[in-house]
Amino acid sequence: GTRDYSPRQMAVREKVFDVIIRCFKRHGAEVIDTPVFELKETLTGKYGEDSKLIYDLKDQGGELLSLRYDLTVPFARYLAMNKLNNIKRYHIAKVYRRDNPAMTRGRYREFYQCDFDIAGNFDPMIPDAECLKIMCEILSSLQIGDFLVKVNDRRILDGMFAICGVPDSKFRTICSSVDKLDKMSWEEVKNEMVGEKGLAPEVADRIGDYVQQHGGVSLVEQLLQDPKLSQNKQALEGLRDLKLLFEYLTLFGIDDKISFDLSLARGLDYYTGVIYEAVLLQSPAQAGEEPLGVGSVAAGGRYDGLVGMFDPKGRKVPCVGLSIGVERIFSIVEQRLEALEEKVRTTETQVLVASAQKKLLEERLKLVSELWDAGIKAELLYRKNPKLLNQLQYCEEAGIPLVAIIGEQELKDGVIKLRSVTSREEVDIRREDLVEEIKRRTGQPLCIC
Amino acid sequence: GTRDYSPRQMAVREKVFDVIIRCFKRHGAEVIDTPVFELKETLTGKYGEDSKLIYDLKDQGGELLSLRYDLTVPFARYLAMNKLNNIKRYHIAKVYRRDNPAMTRGRYREFYQCDFDIAGNFDPMIPDAECLKIMCEILSSLQIGDFLVKVNDRRILDGMFAICGVPDSKFRTICSSVDKLDKMSWEEVKNEMVGEKGLAPEVADRIGDYVQQHGGVSLVEQLLQDPKLSQNKQALEGLRDLKLLFEYLTLFGIDDKISFDLSLARGLDYYTGVIYEAVLLQSPAQAGEEPLGVGSVAAGGRYDGLVGMFDPKGRKVPCVGLSIGVERIFSIVEQRLEALEEKVRTTETQVLVASAQKKLLEERLKLVSELWDAGIKAELLYRKNPKLLNQLQYCEEAGIPLVAIIGEQELKDGVIKLRSVTSREEVDIRREDLVEEIKRRTGQPLCIC
Repeated sequence: GTRDYSPRQMAVREKVFDVIIRCFKRHGAEVIDTPVFELKETLTGKYGEDSKLIYDLKDQGGELLSLRYDLTVPFARYLAMNKLNNIKRYHIAKVYRRDNPAMTRGRYREFYQCDFDIAGNFDPMIPDAECLKIMCEILSSLQIGDFLVKVNDRRILDGMFAICGVPDSKFRTICSSVDKLDKMSWEEVKNEMVGEKGLAPEVADRIGDYVQQHGGVSLVEQLLQDPKLSQNKQALEGLRDLKLLFEYLTLFGIDDKISFDLSLARGLDYYTGVIYEAVLLQSPAQAGEEPLGVGSVAAGGRYDGLVGMFDPKGRKVPCVGLSIGVERIFSIVEQRLEALEEKVRTTETQVLVASAQKKLLEERLKLVSELWDAGIKAELLYRKNPKLLNQLQYCEEAGIPLVAIIGEQELKDGVIKLRSVTSREEVDIRREDLVEEIKRRTGQPLCIC
Repeated sequence: GTRDYSPRQMAVREKVFDVIIRCFKRHGAEVIDTPVFELKETLTGKYGEDSKLIYDLKDQGGELLSLRYDLTVPFARYLAMNKLNNIKRYHIAKVYRRDNPAMTRGRYREFYQCDFDIAGNFDPMIPDAECLKIMCEILSSLQIGDFLVKVNDRRILDGMFAICGVPDSKFRTICSSVDKLDKMSWEEVKNEMVGEKGLAPEVADRIGDYVQQHGGVSLVEQLLQDPKLSQNKQALEGLRDLKLLFEYLTLFGIDDKISFDLSLARGLDYYTGVIYEAVLLQSPAQAGEEPLGVGSVAAGGRYDGLVGMFDPKGRKVPCVGLSIGVERIFSIVEQRLEALEEKVRTTETQVLVASAQKKLLEERLKLVSELWDAGIKAELLYRKNPKLLNQLQYCEEAGIPLVAIIGEQELKDGVIKLRSVTSREEVDIRREDLVEEIKRRTGQPLCIC
């Protein structure tokens, strides 16, 4: 259920994280960290049915602890505990779920989450729009294919359930049926609502008329004219906010990526307002390969009540955030690299310090040390008398672009032979110019101009 | 026993990690990651007395799991499981110990380790010397004060115990008494050996003659002449290797940082050869402040037998590595920053998009979006009509250097007023030149030349 990450996987991982972190920082986020375990009671009652998937620590004396299940609940606990009223932060860390890992492809019991959240009392929909902008920036930068962001609002869903005649007590369970519309047909979902959950068929049909709709801002405007829905206070608030959201998304130039989708419901209990989920429009896998399937790669929403659950006085801090589904993204990027048979470098070494003759270990050690001290990424083989061929092969395998070769003659002349691994060209460089030449050749900036 | 990390603490942490990671990469290391928990049996019998500090997970069905206690044992398990014969990798992650956190200052139940290890069959002491070079590079770069690296060898210790007359069965327990010489006087240590551990006083005295010595390569040479010690095969091997190590350290220009110290023993069971520990020579705290005390900030050694413990055929993979004591280093850096009353920026935002008049939210959103798309780190206040003063104050507090101010006049003229927060100077910049001007002013490289 868990796995090690090899250097190759870690190299992919670092590239993906780099794109994500650069985006989070571009939007002015701070970073926090919380412990891997929380008090068991902190996690209790936050995840609905999924609470059974929480890992508990053994009672070895002291408090009862559980491994974190996501990063949102620890974030809310952090805000309440530190009496913070506003913060914009990101948090990248692993979370733990006792899921059956074999059942779902690419799902593990330990996996990364990348969360960005904005907490604070602000004017409506400005932070919400920024969260969607961030999702679009990251998914575009990662170049994993075309995507669409489905948007809805919990208040619209609840208002719709109310006017369709769903009893209050069934809102959540009917909500989770609706959420299955991305995987099941309406007929199947209706059967679940009526057969398993005891909803009257005509109520289900009324829901069906709504949740099968999706579109842009024009659908929002149409529903604002809907005689029943517009009479429901909650739904009206949700629709007005969505209209404002679309205005901001247009200013951000991402309205074409967004679809108002009444079937989007999201599983978690704590959402209170706008919710969203990004899906890839087609598998990036090439024809003939096993398709990755279309699925969610990022999601989030507004949760204005969660911090209050941890505050002794119930003080509320409105929050909105997003989570990037990095594990799915890692798989997609890894699969793409494999398909392209692209070589992934797992080190950044610029130069291997080598020798052509025997008995030059001391000289190699001196030179590699000079290079390290000058900030050059350098290696040498841990052999007293390695063969030149072995040293060159090492470079080929590791993708090291340059070899600095020491020989008796070079030592006498005060030069180093610098060899390009790909072109096999060799040039004598004066030893005092070597550092600069390596920097020049490997594109390390010499100055900021 | 655990703690959250605030944005300020995380900013310090990121700077320290950055120094360490750059050094590890300079030395050609790959990176791997392993799960936070291991099978309980993997950790059993590796940590001696400290095994009682291991956190177990609750038995919820399935395998018995424990949180990792260090990164070395998971690394060895990883090598054996993947049948790897050589790798040079680093691993930065949190480890878990059920220690009494109140008892020792700055010690937590969850803390980071930063490990670098070289696995493989190589010529003697070349990787060992590189590990010491890395330790010196990192401690110098971090500028946390003068330091000294104590070096010894388990084979020298064992040989010494043998010739002094310590029974085989008491090697480990006498070794851990010797290890206390950095905190206790020789008299106290001798009392422990004789009183608690039942060693004959004359045997203890013979040990005392050795372990109170420390020095450079000359002490190695002197002991190579020691009639008794040089007759012990193990000790002789250790001394010869140390002599070679000193030669390499001289070539690396760090021999002045190294002290051969016969009292260095290190607690962990798995070391088999050279061992080392870096200590700060004086507290970096200023006079009048609570001193941090002198203590270990990095340590490591050679462990040639650990991988074999996980291999079904007992196949051995020699390893040598080091661990940077980052938690201590974080405390030192945080304390130094507090003493200097230095402001630590917790974001990297280059510019705040502001407006001088009301009703300009749409224009602010458009501009900030343009800047994000151009790779500029930019923020805006999440208010429809924020006061200019509040916007400027936000910059002061967050350390944002520039403000891009939009007003009715600027919109007409096609310019943006760019204000420097510290100098308060304002210049009109043509909108199409704004991105370049911000990059120029914030030192973001425009080209690599």
